[in-house]
Amino acid sequence: MKNIILVGAGNVSTHLGIALKNCNYKIVQVYSRSNENAKKLAQKINTDFTNDLTQLKEANLIIVSVNDDAISDILSQLKNTAIVHTSGSIGLDVFNNNFSDCGVFYPIQTFNKEVDVNISEVPFCIEGNSLHFQNQLTQIAKRISNNVVIMDSEQRKQLHIAAIFACNFSNHMYSIADDLLAEKNIDFELLLPLIKQTITKLEKNKPKTVQTGPAKRKNKKIIQEHIDLIQEKEIKELYKKISANIIKTHE
Amino acid sequence: MKNIILVGAGNVSTHLGIALKNCNYKIVQVYSRSNENAKKLAQKINTDFTNDLTQLKEANLIIVSVNDDAISDILSQLKNTAIVHTSGSIGLDVFNNNFSDCGVFYPIQTFNKEVDVNISEVPFCIEGNSLHFQNQLTQIAKRISNNVVIMDSEQRKQLHIAAIFACNFSNHMYSIADDLLAEKNIDFELLLPLIKQTITKLEKNKPKTVQTGPAKRKNKKIIQEHIDLIQEKEIKELYKKISANIIKTHE
Repeated sequence: MKNIILVGAGNVSTHLGIALKNCNYKIVQVYSRSNENAKKLAQKINTDFTNDLTQLKEANLIIVSVNDDAISDILSQLKNTAIVHTSGSIGLDVFNNNFSDCGVFYPIQTFNKEVDVNISEVPFCIEGNSLHFQNQLTQIAKRISNNVVIMDSEQRKQLHIAAIFACNFSNHMYSIADDLLAEKNIDFELLLPLIKQTITKLEKNKPKTVQTGPAKRKNKKIIQEHIDLIQEKEIKELYKKISANIIKTHE
Repeated sequence: MKNIILVGAGNVSTHLGIALKNCNYKIVQVYSRSNENAKKLAQKINTDFTNDLTQLKEANLIIVSVNDDAISDILSQLKNTAIVHTSGSIGLDVFNNNFSDCGVFYPIQTFNKEVDVNISEVPFCIEGNSLHFQNQLTQIAKRISNNVVIMDSEQRKQLHIAAIFACNFSNHMYSIADDLLAEKNIDFELLLPLIKQTITKLEKNKPKTVQTGPAKRKNKKIIQEHIDLIQEKEIKELYKKISANIIKTHE
């Protein structure tokens, strides 16, 4: 499986493309419906590009990394080939039995084109429609990462939901903090040591056991005071709901 | 201000006591209403202890690190002395004009007795009821930390609310993730690289600009699918509310 086509030129495709190229896989072509994006990624990894799915070259494997909503439509335009998608939330069933070798190649990481990632530490979750194909995918994943696990679609879906809480939602908590600080001209950087320490604790402790704060301490007076101080209705509501859930969790 | 009494023997007192002792301050006594806790901390920093506020020794400064709710009661039992509390959410007004030198010595960090912290990187927010006392406090803080800022009670309250989002609430997001993974026998450690990367991004980017996930992409189909999959009512509700707020923030 040396020759690979990347369908999609977004954050995941970019990081995967670079990693695969660095491990001596040949990316024979990049597709994106945006010719400009296809070109940008193709230039980075020194290959061809197209924005026309009927113009795909021959390859051993197609890796589809597009928005979850677009996967099904893309697949309907492809002929039978060995193929994977990289989504945490889409099952094997999306391939609709139209591909003899199909699977999932899901990196548990938040990618951004502009931010470097040490991909060898990124866990990859692999699933294939046959043991043979699953082994082939595992082999590729093990070339680029030291952390490869086999995971079925049901587990992966749950993992994806968990990742949304752990990554997307915690990042949104930082974003809310940033907005609150900006209101009073305070620098967000003051919070970085606190944020880092919160993560360091997770290396040796379960998150529940290192929970701190007024809700953990069931300090309802402070909680109410904060709710009164927060200006924006939705942020007030989030403070209330999350605090209530912390109190419930630590009953 | 060489001789210090610690009132409280919890997480903050423990870390402060050790840091101050390491910087050649003399902790002359530890008070806790629990004799056992007072003794534990006193042994760590090789000093005396008591569980009786009427038995406090002479000192240049008393540092009160107790639950926010208990501060007022403790203060009412103390005679006039130079004194600070370490709470982010309690103002100078708690001292009720009963102390000629009073202030706040608030470390922006989540402390846990069992987890080491590099206190020299912890930002300290200082406030004093006079410029003279504020300068004395700043001097002490600068001995133990490289990051000392002057901050009034109003700013500090807002900072504390922001810290609750950035630290307590994000930790609760990890805790929810851990519970979701446990349901399907998946190891929480798989998420650690993702969590760390989310933090690394914050060093050079505002959290809002590096937001990812289905809500950021306004992928309502996936959001609904996740809401349907989550079993627990409150967690469902949190997924819904936080996603809605991300969508609103990125409109």
